[in-house]
Amino acid sequence: MRETLRERTESMNPVEFIEKKKRGNEHSPEELKDFVLGYVKGEIPDYQMSAWLMAVNFQGMTDRETLALVEVMVNSGEVVDLSHIEGIKVDKHSTGGVGDKVSLILAPLAASCGCIVPMISGRGLGHTGGTLDKLESIPGMRVNLSREEFVSQVERVGVAMIGQTEEIVPADRKMYALRDVTATVRSIPLICASILSKKIAEGIDALVLDVKTGSGAFLQEYEQSRKLAQKLKSVGEEFGLRVKAVITDMNQPLGNKAGNWLEVKESIEVLKGKGPGDLVGVTVYLTAWMLVLAGIASDLKAGEELASRNLKNGKAFEKFLELVEAQGGDVRYIENPEKYRKAPIVKPVKSMVSGYITEIDTELLGLAAVGLGAGRKKITDRILPEVGFVVLKKISEYVKEGEELCIVHAKDERTFEQARGNILKAYKITQYKTSPPPLFYETF
Amino acid sequence: MRETLRERTESMNPVEFIEKKKRGNEHSPEELKDFVLGYVKGEIPDYQMSAWLMAVNFQGMTDRETLALVEVMVNSGEVVDLSHIEGIKVDKHSTGGVGDKVSLILAPLAASCGCIVPMISGRGLGHTGGTLDKLESIPGMRVNLSREEFVSQVERVGVAMIGQTEEIVPADRKMYALRDVTATVRSIPLICASILSKKIAEGIDALVLDVKTGSGAFLQEYEQSRKLAQKLKSVGEEFGLRVKAVITDMNQPLGNKAGNWLEVKESIEVLKGKGPGDLVGVTVYLTAWMLVLAGIASDLKAGEELASRNLKNGKAFEKFLELVEAQGGDVRYIENPEKYRKAPIVKPVKSMVSGYITEIDTELLGLAAVGLGAGRKKITDRILPEVGFVVLKKISEYVKEGEELCIVHAKDERTFEQARGNILKAYKITQYKTSPPPLFYETF
Repeated sequence: MRETLRERTESMNPVEFIEKKKRGNEHSPEELKDFVLGYVKGEIPDYQMSAWLMAVNFQGMTDRETLALVEVMVNSGEVVDLSHIEGIKVDKHSTGGVGDKVSLILAPLAASCGCIVPMISGRGLGHTGGTLDKLESIPGMRVNLSREEFVSQVERVGVAMIGQTEEIVPADRKMYALRDVTATVRSIPLICASILSKKIAEGIDALVLDVKTGSGAFLQEYEQSRKLAQKLKSVGEEFGLRVKAVITDMNQPLGNKAGNWLEVKESIEVLKGKGPGDLVGVTVYLTAWMLVLAGIASDLKAGEELASRNLKNGKAFEKFLELVEAQGGDVRYIENPEKYRKAPIVKPVKSMVSGYITEIDTELLGLAAVGLGAGRKKITDRILPEVGFVVLKKISEYVKEGEELCIVHAKDERTFEQARGNILKAYKITQYKTSPPPLFYETF
Repeated sequence: MRETLRERTESMNPVEFIEKKKRGNEHSPEELKDFVLGYVKGEIPDYQMSAWLMAVNFQGMTDRETLALVEVMVNSGEVVDLSHIEGIKVDKHSTGGVGDKVSLILAPLAASCGCIVPMISGRGLGHTGGTLDKLESIPGMRVNLSREEFVSQVERVGVAMIGQTEEIVPADRKMYALRDVTATVRSIPLICASILSKKIAEGIDALVLDVKTGSGAFLQEYEQSRKLAQKLKSVGEEFGLRVKAVITDMNQPLGNKAGNWLEVKESIEVLKGKGPGDLVGVTVYLTAWMLVLAGIASDLKAGEELASRNLKNGKAFEKFLELVEAQGGDVRYIENPEKYRKAPIVKPVKSMVSGYITEIDTELLGLAAVGLGAGRKKITDRILPEVGFVVLKKISEYVKEGEELCIVHAKDERTFEQARGNILKAYKITQYKTSPPPLFYETF
């Protein structure tokens, strides 16, 4: 039946194309190209694309299909040419989480070790924070460089951190906007194609992927995270990229701070050789893989040593200052972060019970941050850079009734109370001590 | 996770609604109503509806959901009020097939036995024929009566056969048009809601459903046909309708003729007490259930006897003439059908081999009819009433090499040759004799 229906079709048409995916059959690269380019050109309407996206959600895509999708998406726009810049261009991408400020540290750190880091990042999405929003909490910081400015800064400074430009992967912008309003965001091949198309269009040679897993991750189930990591690696390598995909923990916030300016401050601590161990550990690990992929470090251990050294000796911090200055940011904020951007309300949330922290609903913590104004509910919402919270207690720690769990930075009492409610709800406190979750799970 | 995400939503929003179905959770009647009415009003865009339809395709719908969907669809438009007409209003609906001209016979037959038959039918769809197209092969025949004309004719003649009017179930028209272009037609709860909403809006009391199964059916797999039959019955009964759902065979054309005017001619044969046994058998069986539901026959046997009698004694044929005349049709075509509408080419298709006919790909036969011009490939295609074919050999019969399988009625040599190729491909001829398929499978 399946075969005959296909044979009977005279030529590719959108309904047959959708039907094919619905039945779980594999698309040819040609028909995928026709469909996606037809969509970008406006010949395929939104309603056919969204039906197909939902079918993909259920039926998945083979690596061959994902590869073809990445290819057509990349070719829907322009590709940044960095080939005239010497050295291996390496980037890192994280699937996002709460308190995940790794990019802010890792980009200047890797550049300080000799990597070329042309980083194009996104904004906060749902309960997860976004690198661009964090950078913009530094007054004057421009994340909308033109392509020429971007290329020139990468050449001059060795690192640039910007948002997606108009010319790069228009197919992704159009498809992503549609996925966002049709509940088709959480599909592994679609996530994979969205990430890889943007990264390939950046003109990089190598890519480290940080796939988060756990209660604050985009894909919460381990098996899903694992599938995404493997697919990112295999499809990325098909494109000739050097790829490492690491599954890291997101069962609690990374580091102690969540909220844009609070996260910049915590990043500065790490860049000055201090900061919380989990954040330092993950950042050094991911940076080390970038150094290995770039051929700067011979192996992971050498990479970790070099990265740790540049955090201690101030070279990473210097590179960060250089980066901020290059993009017009006010370096006084970086030099004396404690002097700036204080929230009107800074108050603790105290535990109602005594016991061990066994679980943290990190998605709910992320939503608490959004509720404070650290993220957007609607695309038009304005971000408040100074709000967020500091986590004082993490999984496996003991807390006494009345002891502080978090310090909330809020604009007013109402949002503080709302955040307090969510934070108390997010902490699961029991009589049983558990181990803290590992920082990393698997590396592919 | 599922629960918490839902709890976190402040109010129903379309993305959460789609997500809920995607995850396989049940919609509340209220949110289903909001979504569908929002769509009809144009507040929910096509792309969200199509994503939801595709999710329904994979996750299905509970009876409670289907019921709520039927309800909101019925209430999206106007409901025909036939309550002032005495007697039980009964209709029959078939899921469609090749050569399925049962409605043409059954409607006047049931009316001749005392049923009130307010029948609203559809047009040809894909490889299946449509009652309206068949009726329109009778010159002058109007199938677009206004609601007032329709009600008045049902009152006067006891039967009227028309197409869907603008006012009835606008939600179905809008959703069906979208399903047709997004490969979401073959979903059991959606089919169920589409059929029942239209039938309930007709103002009927009882409904016989003919769910086809086999190679020429819309749902080819038996289990699918069975699920649809059961769902139609259970949801229809929830609405207070008296319902019988019969699964009948569509592994070969019903009767011997396919094509609009050819099918009218075959219907006239049956209405005159002749015609092929399978067609007579199915028609009498379905009519008998209508008579039982209407309280005219005490049981199936009595119903079959009454129906058979009115085919033999000319009462059904008289009622058909009355019906055609009432709707403006040229009764000379009914009185002397052989005199009219001859195709330019009438040629046999001869078997290339000797053996028993073990299978007929009836969908392919249907597509052969469409290729001749008996159906539409595009909505704008014009139907040729005179084309089609007469099936001379059916499953279990023996055929010799060079013996005639079908007689094709075509407009030209090119379409004849195309049809010939498809007909030869559709017949599977082997050395093994099989039994003919049964006419009926199960009745619920």
